[in-house]
Formats: sequence, C-alpha cells, structure tokens
Amino acid sequence: MQALVKPDRSPGAEVLQVPIPRLGPCDVLVRVKMASVCGTDLHIYEWDSWAQHRLHPPLTFGHEFCGVVEAAGSDVTTVAAGDLVSAEMHLACGKCVQCRSDQSHVCRNLRILGVDADGCFAEFVRIPESNIWKLDPRIRPEYAAVLDPLGNAVHTVLAGAIAGQSVAIVGCGPIGLMAIAVARACGAGPVVAIEPNPYRRRLAAAMKADLLLDPTHEDVLARVQSEMVAGGIPAGGVDVSLEFSGHPDGIRTSLAIARPGARVSLLGLPAKPLEIDLSEQVILKGLTVQGIHGRRMYETWFQMESLLRGDRLQLDPLFTDRLRLSDFATGMERLKRGEAGKVLLFPDGQQP
Amino acid sequence: MQALVKPDRSPGAEVLQVPIPRLGPCDVLVRVKMASVCGTDLHIYEWDSWAQHRLHPPLTFGHEFCGVVEAAGSDVTTVAAGDLVSAEMHLACGKCVQCRSDQSHVCRNLRILGVDADGCFAEFVRIPESNIWKLDPRIRPEYAAVLDPLGNAVHTVLAGAIAGQSVAIVGCGPIGLMAIAVARACGAGPVVAIEPNPYRRRLAAAMKADLLLDPTHEDVLARVQSEMVAGGIPAGGVDVSLEFSGHPDGIRTSLAIARPGARVSLLGLPAKPLEIDLSEQVILKGLTVQGIHGRRMYETWFQMESLLRGDRLQLDPLFTDRLRLSDFATGMERLKRGEAGKVLLFPDGQQP
Amino acid sequence: MQALVKPDRSPGAEVLQVPIPRLGPCDVLVRVKMASVCGTDLHIYEWDSWAQHRLHPPLTFGHEFCGVVEAAGSDVTTVAAGDLVSAEMHLACGKCVQCRSDQSHVCRNLRILGVDADGCFAEFVRIPESNIWKLDPRIRPEYAAVLDPLGNAVHTVLAGAIAGQSVAIVGCGPIGLMAIAVARACGAGPVVAIEPNPYRRRLAAAMKADLLLDPTHEDVLARVQSEMVAGGIPAGGVDVSLEFSGHPDGIRTSLAIARPGARVSLLGLPAKPLEIDLSEQVILKGLTVQGIHGRRMYETWFQMESLLRGDRLQLDPLFTDRLRLSDFATGMERLKRGEAGKVLLFPDGQQP
Amino acid sequence: MQALVKPDRSPGAEVLQVPIPRLGPCDVLVRVKMASVCGTDLHIYEWDSWAQHRLHPPLTFGHEFCGVVEAAGSDVTTVAAGDLVSAEMHLACGKCVQCRSDQSHVCRNLRILGVDADGCFAEFVRIPESNIWKLDPRIRPEYAAVLDPLGNAVHTVLAGAIAGQSVAIVGCGPIGLMAIAVARACGAGPVVAIEPNPYRRRLAAAMKADLLLDPTHEDVLARVQSEMVAGGIPAGGVDVSLEFSGHPDGIRTSLAIARPGARVSLLGLPAKPLEIDLSEQVILKGLTVQGIHGRRMYETWFQMESLLRGDRLQLDPLFTDRLRLSDFATGMERLKRGEAGKVLLFPDGQQP
Repeated sequence: MQALVKPDRSPGAEVLQVPIPRLGPCDVLVRVKMASVCGTDLHIYEWDSWAQHRLHPPLTFGHEFCGVVEAAGSDVTTVAAGDLVSAEMHLACGKCVQCRSDQSHVCRNLRILGVDADGCFAEFVRIPESNIWKLDPRIRPEYAAVLDPLGNAVHTVLAGAIAGQSVAIVGCGPIGLMAIAVARACGAGPVVAIEPNPYRRRLAAAMKADLLLDPTHEDVLARVQSEMVAGGIPAGGVDVSLEFSGHPDGIRTSLAIARPGARVSLLGLPAKPLEIDLSEQVILKGLTVQGIHGRRMYETWFQMESLLRGDRLQLDPLFTDRLRLSDFATGMERLKRGEAGKVLLFPDGQQP
Repeated sequence: MQALVKPDRSPGAEVLQVPIPRLGPCDVLVRVKMASVCGTDLHIYEWDSWAQHRLHPPLTFGHEFCGVVEAAGSDVTTVAAGDLVSAEMHLACGKCVQCRSDQSHVCRNLRILGVDADGCFAEFVRIPESNIWKLDPRIRPEYAAVLDPLGNAVHTVLAGAIAGQSVAIVGCGPIGLMAIAVARACGAGPVVAIEPNPYRRRLAAAMKADLLLDPTHEDVLARVQSEMVAGGIPAGGVDVSLEFSGHPDGIRTSLAIARPGARVSLLGLPAKPLEIDLSEQVILKGLTVQGIHGRRMYETWFQMESLLRGDRLQLDPLFTDRLRLSDFATGMERLKRGEAGKVLLFPDGQQP
Repeated sequence: MQALVKPDRSPGAEVLQVPIPRLGPCDVLVRVKMASVCGTDLHIYEWDSWAQHRLHPPLTFGHEFCGVVEAAGSDVTTVAAGDLVSAEMHLACGKCVQCRSDQSHVCRNLRILGVDADGCFAEFVRIPESNIWKLDPRIRPEYAAVLDPLGNAVHTVLAGAIAGQSVAIVGCGPIGLMAIAVARACGAGPVVAIEPNPYRRRLAAAMKADLLLDPTHEDVLARVQSEMVAGGIPAGGVDVSLEFSGHPDGIRTSLAIARPGARVSLLGLPAKPLEIDLSEQVILKGLTVQGIHGRRMYETWFQMESLLRGDRLQLDPLFTDRLRLSDFATGMERLKRGEAGKVLLFPDGQQP
Repeated sequence: MQALVKPDRSPGAEVLQVPIPRLGPCDVLVRVKMASVCGTDLHIYEWDSWAQHRLHPPLTFGHEFCGVVEAAGSDVTTVAAGDLVSAEMHLACGKCVQCRSDQSHVCRNLRILGVDADGCFAEFVRIPESNIWKLDPRIRPEYAAVLDPLGNAVHTVLAGAIAGQSVAIVGCGPIGLMAIAVARACGAGPVVAIEPNPYRRRLAAAMKADLLLDPTHEDVLARVQSEMVAGGIPAGGVDVSLEFSGHPDGIRTSLAIARPGARVSLLGLPAKPLEIDLSEQVILKGLTVQGIHGRRMYETWFQMESLLRGDRLQLDPLFTDRLRLSDFATGMERLKRGEAGKVLLFPDGQQP
C-alpha cells in the first residue's frame, strides 16, 4: 500500500510502497478515507529536536483520520467490515495506576500511533479494537477526520464548569479555534479570543468569538477586566481561561486575565521553563490551574459524538486545504507559513 | 399604589390601592415594569390546600418580575435609582448551617416574597439589596421578568455535567420548556422531550427538542433505549434525566429511562408519597438522584445572565399572553386550562 | 481439588472434588488461603428466589478471598507465582458505554465470579489478570480476605465528601460495621450508628461509632436533630446518611435524618418497591441520593490499600468465626441466626 | 484596655492602653482568653517590606484567638454574652462576584482584622456577628486559639480527595505540621513530610508522618518514586502534593514528586516569581495545581469543628510556648530563630 513515511533520521518524508499491516486477534484494519495534519506531523517532517529524540524511523506517521473497517481480528466484537470509524491514537497500557483510576490520558506507558508506531498517513492503518471509535453516520467525514484535535479542545473546555461562564481562549491555532466553537456550543459567554496573527483572528471571528483581542496592539488585561462584568459588578477577569499557544506571554496572560477563583487550563506546551509570579497570579487569587493532555478515554469521545451528531458545532471554516497524500509537501509548507487551518490529506484513490 | 392582593382567606384576588412599601437602610424600592405569573400564583388565586396552610392574607402576591430602581436605603451601595433590576425572591437567613455552607437555596428559615411577605404584582416592590439582581442592559425585559422560573430550569440543568450528554426532559410546563432551551444552549444532545399535552409538545418543538415523545401513545422506555446509542453501542437510556412534571408516572419514567450511571434531577413536586422500585431503578443502576429547589444564590443568576446577554437562549415562543394587571383573571383562567405558556402582567401605566 | 459446590437447583451445598481450572493466556490461578462468606452466599446456600433466577448449577460459589498466585497465563505481566493477591470478582465487559466512561461498576454486561461462573470457595480459583489485586505485604490476610465487602463500604463512604462531615450509618450488618470504621478513619464526625439488633450494636460500639441508636426504643429523628449542631446551630440532621439495611424503615429513616442539602447513599437492596415522600424528604430538602453498587474499578481498591497498609482501619472485632471449608454449614447457620460478623473459611490444608 | 500595638511605621511593637472598641448593631465584643502568633505577626513586628506597604499604624495586631462574648450589638441573634467563640478574621464584602458565588475566601475587597483594622492581641476584640464562630464546648482553648492556621491546613488538605490518597507535605512550619495531622485524620496514607530543619522534622514525627525526608541529605524524588507503590505498581509519585514552604525549591519539589494525574495545592507564598517547567511538570503530567488562600467561609470551619469535637486531631506537640501578652517579645524572638511551634499569648489577667 501507499504510505507517507519518514524513512530515516533526517528532514522530509516520502510516499512509499509498504506492506499492509497484519492483524492480531484484537486488531482492526481500517481503510483510510481522509487524514488530517497536526502540528506534531510538521515537527516530524522538519525533524526538529523533539522528533530526533522521540522517533525511530522508518515510520508511517499521521494520527488524525477517519475511514472504513476493512477487516477485523478474530476477537473483535464491536465493529465489523464496512463500519465508518475513527480512533484514539494514544495507546494506554491498561495496567498502570493511572489507567486503573480513569486517568489513562496520562498513562505512564503511553504509546502513540503515528509517533511511536505506524500511523494513518497511508491507505490502511491497524488499530487495536479498544481504541476504535465507531462513528455515528450523521457525523461528516471532515469532522470525523479531526476528532483527535477536536478532542483536545473538548477535553480542555470541559475540564471544568463551562456553561454560563465567561471564557478566554488564548492562542487561536486549530485547537484554540475549535475550542471557541466548543465553548460557545456548551453555553459559555462571553468568549474572548486572544491572538496576534490576523489570519487566525479572522478564523476566530468565523468561529463566533464574542470579542477578539490582538495582544500586540491592545492592553488585553485592561480590556478583559473592563468587559467582564457579572450582576453589574466587575469580576476581575474571566471565569475560565484556556491556553493553547504554549507561548510564555500567552501563558502569563492566561493567568493574569483569570479572575480570583477562576479555572485556568493549559494545553499549549511551552518549549522551555518560564517564570511565573505564583504568589500574585495563582495562590492569592485561589486559581485552579490544570495541565491538559490528550483526550479522556473515552468520556471526551462520547462528548464529541454528542456535540457533532446534533450539529452543535460548526467547524467548516477550519478546513482550508484538501490535498492528495502525494501532495503532502504543499500542505506542510502552508502550515509552516501559518496560512492554513486544517490540512486534509486523501490517500490516492480517495477523492479530495 | 395599585396591587394585586389576596384580601382574605378565600378564593380569588383583587386589585386594590395599598401604601407604597417603606424602605429600611438595606432595602431597594423597585418600580415594577413587567411581572409574570407562576403556577404558585394560581394556587394562591384558587386558594388550594397548600395556600390555605401557608398564606396569611392580606398579601400582595407575585414573585417574578423586572423593574427599575425607584429609591434605595442609606446602606445600599450596589444599585441606584434608574438601574434595571430583577430579584431573587427567596430570602435566605444567612445564619443557618445551609446558608453558611453555600446551600442557601435550602435555607432552613427561608421566606419567599409574594408568599410569606408582599410580592411584585404591584406598582412597586421592596427588596433587600442582597437579593437584587442588576440586569445587563442587553437582556430583554420579557426575559428579565422570568428569571425566577428560568433559574429553576438553569439550576436543574446545570446541577451536573450537561455538555455532550443525552438528556430527557420529563414534563413540558414552562420550566420544562425553558430547560429544553437551556440544555441545548449548554451543549446537551440529543434532548428528548416527554409530554402528553399536545399544546405543550408543540412548544417543546419550538424550543428545539431533538425528539418529542408522547407517553400516552408511545413506549417511551423502548424509544429512549433504542435511540440512545453512544460510540455505536446502546447506552441503556439517557445520561441525564430531568423531571419537571411532579406526576408519579413522570417521576417513575424519569428513573426508568436513565441509563446505569446516570444523573436524575427532580424539580417537579409530587402531591403525595409514591412507590419507587429503588433496587432496580436506583441502587443497582448506580444512579445519582438530586432534589432541586429554587436557585443557587447566586451561581444560578450568574449563569443565567451569561446565557442571556450573549443571546444563547431563544425563549420567545413561551410568551403567549400580555395583560394589564387589572386583567389578571383572564391570565389565571388561561393558565388553568393549560392554554398558556408564560402570562406577563403589566401594572397599569406600563405598556403591555 | 476440593470445592464448595452448589450441585443442583435445590437448597444446600456440598464439598466435592472438581478439576483445577485451566488457564487462558490472560488468566491467573490463585491458591486460596482464606475466603469469607457474604450474605449472597447464604442466599445461594438457601436457594432463595433471587438465587433460583440467577444461578446455573453446578457452580463453585464464594467471591471474597485472598491467596497466593500459583500460575499465570502467557500474557500476564503484572503478577507472578508467589505473589499475595485478592481480586475484584465483578467482571466488567470493557466495551459498553459504562465501562468506557469510568462506570464499570455498573457495566451493562457484568458477570460475577462465584455467582455467574466458578468462585473462590475452593483450593484454587481462576481470575483474569485485569481483576487481580496484588496485595501490599503489610495487609493482614484476614483483611485481604474481605476486600470485596470492605470495598462496598469504602465505595459508599467515599462516594462524596466525608472528612469533617456528620454521618449516619443505617444498618450495622458487616458492611455497615465496616463503614463505621471507614468513616471514622476518613475524618467523619460524629458517626451515628442506627441498628435494632443488640449484637450488632455491640459490634458498632467496637467499631467506635460516636453515638448508637436503637430505632425500636428511641426517636431516632429527634435524637439526630438534637445532636447535630454545627457552629452552634442545629443543622437539621446529618451531613451524610449511608443506608446498608435495605429495609423500608431504614431507607425512610436515612432520608428523614438527612439535613437539607445532605448526601444520602443507598447500598442496601430493598426486597420490593417502597413508598417515599419525595417532595418533603428529597426535593424540598435538596438532597443528593446515590445508588451504590459494587466497587469503583479500581479507585476503591487503591483507597482500600492505602487505608489498610497504613493501619488506618481496625476491623478485628468483625472476624468472629474461622472454619474449615468442610465445616461451612456451621458458618451458614450462624449467619442465618444473625450471630456472626464475618465468617472466614479455610480450604483444607490451610490453617484456620 | 491593654493591647499589643504597632504604634508607628517602624520595627517593634508596644503594649499600650487603648479604648475598648465600641459596638455597632451587628458587632460582637469578645474578651480574649488566648491568642496565638502567626508568621504574619512577625512580619508586622519586624516591619518588613510587605508590612510597610500594607499597614497603617497605629494598629492592634493579631488575628488568631479564642475568647468569651462580653457584649453583643442590638441586631446580633446567634451568640450572647458568655458564649465561647473564635472568629474568621478575613472580612469579606459580601457583594462582589466572588462573595456571591461561594468564593469569599478570595473576595476582591477583603479586609483582615489584625492587619487592615484592629485585631486580637488585646483584652477585647470587636468582630462582626457574621464572622463569629461559636465553639463547641468540647474544643479545648489551645485548639480554639489556632483555628485560623488550622483552617489554612484544613482548606489545603480538603481542597480535593484525600482519603486513601498518598500525600506529601512540603514544608513543616506550623501549618504544614497541622496538615500532617489533618491528612492522617482524614484517611490519607502514606503521608510523607519533607523538611530540611531537624527541629521541625521532629515535630513532623510527633504529628505522625509516615515517612520523613530531609531534602538537604536525601534524593527526595527518588525516595518518593520508589515508595509510592499502589496495587503492586509504582505510581510515579504521590497522589496529592501540598506545599507550605513557599520556597522555590519546595514548590518545584512539590510538582516533581506529584504523580501524573495528581493534585498539587500551594499555600506557601514565594517571595518572588520563579521558573517552572510547565510542560514536563504540569501539562504532560495532567496535574491540577491549586492556589490556596485563607479558609472557605464557612465550610472549612464546619470541617474543623467536626474534626476537633470528636478528638480526631492531636496537635499538642505544637504548643511550645505560653506567654503573657506583655512578654510578646520573647515569643517573637523564638519564632524568628525557628525554635518554636505555636506561641500562645495570654492578655494579662488570663492565666498562661
């Protein structure tokens, strides 16, 4: 079959012919219908420091997709050939303390398909049954192909109370943009989007943020403090502050604009340690700061399905690029220049 | 001033001239702009058994309204003449264990304005500052006049997780109808409305329930069990079951259609004890059953304001009747016949 | 091997020679060191209506035990021969909505070893690795043999806030008695035990209940309401009410003595539907009523281990009887007469 | 009356004669029986940078005490002359968003008696009725005099699940020491105390920490990771990490020793911003980090009372010094040298 492969320890990637994966008794073989490119894939493509430490080429990468079950191992009971599916690509061990106490999203032995083992930028991908997500037929394929990052957004937004809460979204990359839509769909208001890049601010507007702030030209803290009024009284910031940029300024902003008693949920990964004024910004304000990683298995997936099958989310403006798998380099370049939302890849034979 | 008064211990009510209330240092005098009739007001009007035990006429009744501050006592700091306001009409004592541990909605010394002391069916109403809710000017007066029952709905819907949850609304009186809109606005889906009265089912459709069930002609349990599929697997019922009818059949249905592990929140008050199969319906299913009363002070109000000022709720179909205060009897009769949503009353001088 | 078997569809049981179970690749064979008798085992022994509907003899029953790993299947990685272990005997399917959302204690396809398949009243028992619990060596064998009912108690007590809460334990059978010790060890106070049987009240005293009430001779509601004072003010009942009797009077008492805003957790299973005054006892009081079943997998087990290895629980008074497996009938009779705490059974070859 | 006063903007303090406070209608006058010295009082005494910015001398300081009601204003209903009381000395405004949503511990207009207005190092102190805590007579006066710092400890320990959790206490000053006792009393285990000062480690042993670690001589992370085993499997750290030192190393340790999925609660205030590796230590580990300030009003007080009246806490080793108010300087010096637990002060006329 055709697959997008990182062939060796150097930048770039190649579309190659590789064998179709063989199935164990608990595995499912999925014919990939549509895949989507993550920032992580760009790291792999560019072979940055993180990729050099983590990857063992050759590797078929990619971890966002939807497809149709082609075949299933002998012990598989919940899906059958022809079913439309996506998958959780984080493989939890099922045996560690975290897995045994409903925290498999931080499994101590986590392996990621598309990073630690072959992924979905290919005609077929092999997935353990436990990680398969059978799709409600009402969910459109574009949406089904981005459940991984949408799950990050849903996990972050729903990590605490959200309905009737004022919310800030700091950083409007694809996951932050999805979080705007999710927060609105879940009753948040007002939703403030904070993003320096004008292209992304336009997408944030399309996602229906109530207020758009450009931190390079506005005093974000002052604006947030003056706008966040509840019961006629200034609250001192937002009820919920969600951080998707990973940038030190974004993180410090996310704390500063949180009102005393607020929740701050951090998904964006800063590249290195940063200085934080814990006394003034966290302790005396009585904040709850959460580190968010991956998706809850499988609460997040149930939540996503519920939101999507009832058409509660409108994500169409995010799908900016549709390319054949063999044209992957075009997508990587557009992402690198910050000129794309989500880039969808179609294995040859599928229709972009 | 003009007021709608229950003058003595008998059915009916009268519009009478009464003195404008005098203010203490912590009180606020509000000129009523619009009031709304509750089922409780009908009980008072009809002088049923509950009313006979609870009320001490003469009493100006009514406890749903919005208005404009006319005057404020010397210690009042958070509102001033001219402010648009509504109010929480449950007066909590502030000193009991419940009040001191964030449960003032079940204050052991609760008094209700419009039931235990004079209410808002009048040109003016007196409210302690602590209970005043200053309105965001973006909230339309019709909506501001029904924050009391809307708060019941919000309290019920948000008493647990709701985003991404399948929800049943059992009983589509005004509060159940509002709950449909609230649940949808807060990311629930699918939202199933169960109601025998066709007039109310039409309103439930206008509130955008995803599925309407008529318990007099359909096997509600079978329908719910077949429709509630998550991740391709039948869940065994809804994630969240909300009861607004108070009818024994409604209550038993709300338990039966709850999936193992579900939340069931009960607001409707049954008239007398009823038989429940606790083992099969609650214990072995691991349900959480919540009694819901009043509104959280003031979490529920913050949530309502957030939902309303951002236009997350569309309640217009509920406002079926607009009458002068002096035409109150017409409204009472229409409510009695089950032919009205919310009846709005306008003190003479205000424009219906 | 020797096993205590229900041989056919009639009262009684027999110690018989049966084959040692054969292991699949994910199974563990455990040499039983000590087992313990549950009320369920008495139902099986007596062949009551529940047993007649649920069981398919022949069956080796028993589901509370500890032992030593004798052998492990080829895929087992977390335990090895010689390890001291106990086990969760509820086998969850792992694939239903409940199992995929951290509610496997109410798995829709639950099977119980010792009820639906062979159990532990035998020299050896076969357990899937997923359900094995490797014991900290500081945990004494008597305690390790009763982790199943202790887990019921821990699940019930820790189903909500408990530290610094006043608690009522309604019904002092073995699980209720354990719950007294657990509640105290977890910072509850005062702990009120309510039990008509004087033998059990003596055991409740040994478990260090702060207050013992006999509902046949005392006005339980009046006593609870007068004793529960917090911050100098009567609270109106206990903060947390835990029901273990399953008796209609016990259940109604558990609701009546709960203060407005309290948690009520129900574990005891009433034999048939009962009448409840939902309006006065649940809804207007704003109670949270929880159905409790089984043990959380495996949060409850982590909690138990933590409590036991640090010697936070003193359960010795409960171990009233130690018998050889072949003397099981003596234990059944003593349990039937309500004259025993926990009856421990030792497969022949083990030392009682 | 006699009072310990900071007379002007310079180091030191003096015992002076000042007028007895005059009562408003909602105030209570308390005759101080015993007071206790906080680290904050030492800052005031030494007139450090924080004190210089915050205080407006002359001021009677001190904010930990118990006493007897001497007189009460005309509107006071919940206490009367002769009642034994303590008080919450943080005065919340009652009108801000935080106060109206059960977060008055981070009230935006918080004033502290003994810091922003006259406190309790005096024969009499004036307290608003809302902040008075009527004491259960079973609570011993030494314990009643330290409810403020004990409340900090209880707030920190009970800010999340604690029963059956492994817990680290980082920093064993008086509040950390109290937290050891509270965590044990609430079912935590094992409880690991981390403290470089040998005097404090001895007190930690007296508080019954299960494991004592000296970060100056031991590899704390390695020890914690090897000791924290649950269900036979290393958890990767503690379930709950509580920080009381405010030292940058302590804070970084508190994060490092938290297992993936853990709670970290920070009470100690670092003097300035510090560098944190958010990606590795918080986000990828999925931690929940809480800033803790003050005491929950009044949940924390109810919890303390429940723990104390049932003798669940043994704090005696902490009471190292008992002095007359006029001997305050001795106590300040001993605290400065780190040679004291809690220093109790007795207004002249009371018996030390």
